[in-house]
Amino acid sequence: MRQLQFWFEFASTYSYVAASRVERIADAARLTVDWRPFLLGPIFQGQGWNDSPFNLYPVKGRYMWRDMERLCAGEGLAFRRPSQFPRNGLLAARIATLAEAEPWRAEFVRRIYAANFADDRDIAAPAVVGDVLGSLGLPVAEILESAQSRENKERLRLQTEEAVRLGIFGAPSFVVGEELFWGNDRLERAVAWCEQP
Amino acid sequence: MRQLQFWFEFASTYSYVAASRVERIADAARLTVDWRPFLLGPIFQGQGWNDSPFNLYPVKGRYMWRDMERLCAGEGLAFRRPSQFPRNGLLAARIATLAEAEPWRAEFVRRIYAANFADDRDIAAPAVVGDVLGSLGLPVAEILESAQSRENKERLRLQTEEAVRLGIFGAPSFVVGEELFWGNDRLERAVAWCEQP
Repeated sequence: MRQLQFWFEFASTYSYVAASRVERIADAARLTVDWRPFLLGPIFQGQGWNDSPFNLYPVKGRYMWRDMERLCAGEGLAFRRPSQFPRNGLLAARIATLAEAEPWRAEFVRRIYAANFADDRDIAAPAVVGDVLGSLGLPVAEILESAQSRENKERLRLQTEEAVRLGIFGAPSFVVGEELFWGNDRLERAVAWCEQP
Repeated sequence: MRQLQFWFEFASTYSYVAASRVERIADAARLTVDWRPFLLGPIFQGQGWNDSPFNLYPVKGRYMWRDMERLCAGEGLAFRRPSQFPRNGLLAARIATLAEAEPWRAEFVRRIYAANFADDRDIAAPAVVGDVLGSLGLPVAEILESAQSRENKERLRLQTEEAVRLGIFGAPSFVVGEELFWGNDRLERAVAWCEQP
């Protein structure tokens, strides 16, 4: 089976929508999803931004929140505009990195997104991330500790460098072979690209 | 029949794709298209940009050009990356404004886009714009002069102010009632919104 790389950042609103539907769309095309957490912060800093562009450009931000409402309503996906935006997804991204080979990775990712964008919980807080891990029946303390190991931190750092190498500048992004597709609304095109002979 | 407002800027690559397909998609849904030329320059300046974001953020620009190649190939739309980007579409936008009630407006818009993005011609040059008007069998000198009248310049200025009032920050944009949709890839959603009961 061919692979669709799904690059996501936990602070990203449109990644929430993509995370909720990427497996369904990929499964229908008989593709496996390679979940790739990364950090947008360093990439945005490289562009001279010290905040989300949706905060730096409020007109664009206003549009995005309305667009998210419409999109989520259309997808039947719970959505509440978070009281804080963006939230720091570093700890959650480290856990998603740690969980590369774990069967619970995708569901962990979706639950973290739901905590942020449906339940307005602070995903930067270890207690909130711990709740999500606990809801999956996982050993919370052990995972929180392993996620913060030097080796695992380094893996996420390298993963973000890999994103830069691939030309990624926003989230979500999809990569198929050497082809990059940016944005939740490019998911179908990325899948169609995989299906080309 | 209900109306779909199509807001476009001649320098905008994705507006080229949208202009080529907006009537087909709208017709199928029995919507009329209200073609709305405006200028992104003043809006970008308000965000602190003195150039296209695709030039200011080269990684994003690189992605956009590749994305345009793929998109246009998929649409069967001729595309060549222009040797100059962005090109100044002020004169063409003034003519599109002047032509509000003219039956040739849509075709003029499409031909100007093709001159820029398929034939790599400088649409800022009156001679190039004149060629396009001539190809439509129109009185070139008369239209070029009327387009530069104080009254017509003012109409385009007001149209750009109206874009700002609507929350428009990029092109193409679609407006249905009070709802704004940004980007060529939102055309289908804008049309679907029109069709809601």
